[in-house]
Amino acid sequence: MNKPQIGVIGMAVMGKNLALNIESRGYSVAIFNRTGSKTEKVVADHPDKKLLPSYTIKDFVESLEKPRRIIMMVKAGAATDATIKQLLPFLEKGDVLIDGGNTFFEDTIRRSEALDNSGINFIGMGVSGGEKGALEGPSLMPGGQKEAYDLVAPILQQIAAKADDDKACVTYIGPNGAGHYVKMVHNGIEYGDMELIAESYSLLRNLLGLSVKEIAAIFEEWRSTELNSYLIDITADILTRKDDLGSGKPIVDMILDRAGNKGTGKWSSQSALELGVPQSLITESVYARYISAFKDERVEASKVLAKPVFNNKSLDKKEYIEKIRQALYFSKIMSYAQGFEQLRVASKKYDWNLKFGELAMIWREGCIIRAQFLQKITDAFENNENLKNLMLDDYFNDITAKYQDSVRDIAALAIKAGIACPAFSSAITYYDQYRSAVLPANVIQAQRDYFGAHTYERTDKDGIFHYEWYHEQ
Amino acid sequence: MNKPQIGVIGMAVMGKNLALNIESRGYSVAIFNRTGSKTEKVVADHPDKKLLPSYTIKDFVESLEKPRRIIMMVKAGAATDATIKQLLPFLEKGDVLIDGGNTFFEDTIRRSEALDNSGINFIGMGVSGGEKGALEGPSLMPGGQKEAYDLVAPILQQIAAKADDDKACVTYIGPNGAGHYVKMVHNGIEYGDMELIAESYSLLRNLLGLSVKEIAAIFEEWRSTELNSYLIDITADILTRKDDLGSGKPIVDMILDRAGNKGTGKWSSQSALELGVPQSLITESVYARYISAFKDERVEASKVLAKPVFNNKSLDKKEYIEKIRQALYFSKIMSYAQGFEQLRVASKKYDWNLKFGELAMIWREGCIIRAQFLQKITDAFENNENLKNLMLDDYFNDITAKYQDSVRDIAALAIKAGIACPAFSSAITYYDQYRSAVLPANVIQAQRDYFGAHTYERTDKDGIFHYEWYHEQ
Repeated sequence: MNKPQIGVIGMAVMGKNLALNIESRGYSVAIFNRTGSKTEKVVADHPDKKLLPSYTIKDFVESLEKPRRIIMMVKAGAATDATIKQLLPFLEKGDVLIDGGNTFFEDTIRRSEALDNSGINFIGMGVSGGEKGALEGPSLMPGGQKEAYDLVAPILQQIAAKADDDKACVTYIGPNGAGHYVKMVHNGIEYGDMELIAESYSLLRNLLGLSVKEIAAIFEEWRSTELNSYLIDITADILTRKDDLGSGKPIVDMILDRAGNKGTGKWSSQSALELGVPQSLITESVYARYISAFKDERVEASKVLAKPVFNNKSLDKKEYIEKIRQALYFSKIMSYAQGFEQLRVASKKYDWNLKFGELAMIWREGCIIRAQFLQKITDAFENNENLKNLMLDDYFNDITAKYQDSVRDIAALAIKAGIACPAFSSAITYYDQYRSAVLPANVIQAQRDYFGAHTYERTDKDGIFHYEWYHEQ
Repeated sequence: MNKPQIGVIGMAVMGKNLALNIESRGYSVAIFNRTGSKTEKVVADHPDKKLLPSYTIKDFVESLEKPRRIIMMVKAGAATDATIKQLLPFLEKGDVLIDGGNTFFEDTIRRSEALDNSGINFIGMGVSGGEKGALEGPSLMPGGQKEAYDLVAPILQQIAAKADDDKACVTYIGPNGAGHYVKMVHNGIEYGDMELIAESYSLLRNLLGLSVKEIAAIFEEWRSTELNSYLIDITADILTRKDDLGSGKPIVDMILDRAGNKGTGKWSSQSALELGVPQSLITESVYARYISAFKDERVEASKVLAKPVFNNKSLDKKEYIEKIRQALYFSKIMSYAQGFEQLRVASKKYDWNLKFGELAMIWREGCIIRAQFLQKITDAFENNENLKNLMLDDYFNDITAKYQDSVRDIAALAIKAGIACPAFSSAITYYDQYRSAVLPANVIQAQRDYFGAHTYERTDKDGIFHYEWYHEQ
């Protein structure tokens, strides 16, 4: 076996699968895990693979070809700091250390700065696609020194997913925390996509009264529309599945309506709040998961709180299924419009020079939000690299113009029927806010000037003004 | 002049007014400002007041009666840390240092811990009511050592606002960061109240086509309903005011629709996200301010994006004015329900043992959200101190049952008419989420288990399960 060209630290499922993915492209891979038995097991399970196990960090580092290329797939946070600390004594100038964990971007910025004078390169890399993606081809979002990226690019391009046009789903994202930031927004968008699908399902079921089987057939149909995406695919599949524990019911009816989360959607919303960017749809999706966790309270409240009187008899099912589909696509566009607005503001603030069209391009395969629709985003930024908001692109403008009536109809109907659709509501509300030349924020600013002398700007001239509210005029 | 019983550091308007307020209750007050000329000016402007100026921190501290009571009214952040650092060499065990700035609660926790072994008491105190409140009687939210609170309570009770029942709007909130946390949520609620008023104004104007004069009369009427509050009062006043720069128009029409913010609403939302509490209404209110700031983009978008066709001719104005009023009260209840849910979770997490009824009680006067309605919240927690959500209290349950149709009608109509009402939408959506025994989060959890093996819980038995999605059943 040649000296390994790359090493992977962390033999939990993501690290192991990434190592196997790399090995499958003809590389030999050094592997290490804090608990040696895990490393032993990986080697024992894959005796024919070019995996070189080490049981000390020193041996691991020394086993590698120089400049060393190391991917850490360890738990984000303290474990990552500990691993870096252990590695440092053995690394040399020019080596490339990659953090492939779900790391908060500010930690990546901090680590990047800490290593800045050492000459050791540091890449924070978002890895999307779950276990299966790691093994077969993930979408990769590496951020760090460009010259460090170039040293690992040949490997990353081989292990990444390939889109229909055979382009690898990896590109250089930008300096320091850019990769992990983009991954975070990707995950926020994923929360939005999932919530929108859940709300569509809820409307099909509770507004139109369809069965799980009928809804499965609808999602199956939607796969061949502009909605086509991995999440629509798996939803169509999920809805056809029977309970594996013998109840005879669809599995979806046996799954408790309490959705977990691992924090990246939350981070994305917190960052939007920090940056001053409206990101209502993703935030509502995060909150929807939170409120799902208040199961006991909800059950209690359902017995006590009044519900609306609503009759769905007058609704033409076929017509409304199509309206829901249009509402879903419209809302998805709003979610991405907000996500890319956030990326635009972040890019400016952190000086990352993000290439928005390329981000959409590397999400076309490998990751959870992969979808045909992403090509439209790439096209939009190729047509106008200074595009301020996706909605202003011709393709998206046409779609929203065509579908706005449907989403209005669906969101209004959901409110009347008492079916909570926070993502749909926030989508049309964002659209209306964004296209409002005048918002009632003048009243808010008047109040602020009234009680706090916060001053105001005027509609007729430049400058800062204060009104003497406490004097009669 | 006696040795001053208390000192105030920071002679910007809030600090100066607080010092004058204290002095007016018969105390002599030591004052200090980093820039001495400001101190000189305060003394010169108020020659007949018992204000003792100092021009070094040492003199200032030494001028005070022991145990020393010092209120810092300096800029939150680095300036507060710097002031503490300068004070420390001169303080003694048993002294009470109060930070009355708009400090982030985590900073207060940190500072509290740092001083823990010194024997110097530290209180983080929220001060609400703006300049006027500071001078005439603010609402005060002090958090820190109970014994330290007791040392300053006599003064705080005298300077605080008094409610109708003559109770002072101050109480011991809880340990370390509790006071600043409660102030932060207060401010978040303030954002929600202001946004709801702005949306009501927008509907009256844009949905019903009323003039500013007519809307002023409506707000004037609302002052004598259950909506009665300071913010309704000042809005009624604002809408009667003419431009002071001679345009002849109502001032509200000359104020640019770009609302600023000082970050506490943002903090409140970020903390809700951190704690796993749904806080959609306040967050939408923060985002509404953000999107108001995108004025140029909005103007551009208004020319390009499609709007709905809507005709308001069939709307009975009188009927709809009342519906808007009911929608406003309903939504306000949702906002407070979310705010108090957040306080409940925070109290548990940080071990603060907050007294929710008392918080509502000290907000009845002095602060920006002061309102008659707060007594209802106090009552609700007095009836049931373990109340999980305000909505489950009889009074609030009755109101929401009576008004839910109105808010549904208004929110749905706003969506149809293209008038953005994010707070109204999120209010009714939250209500429907909270009263849903079953939400579509089962679909989300199925997806998570599908692509990430995140496991799921079941509706029919306890435990954690995983479905073998990649095997045909």
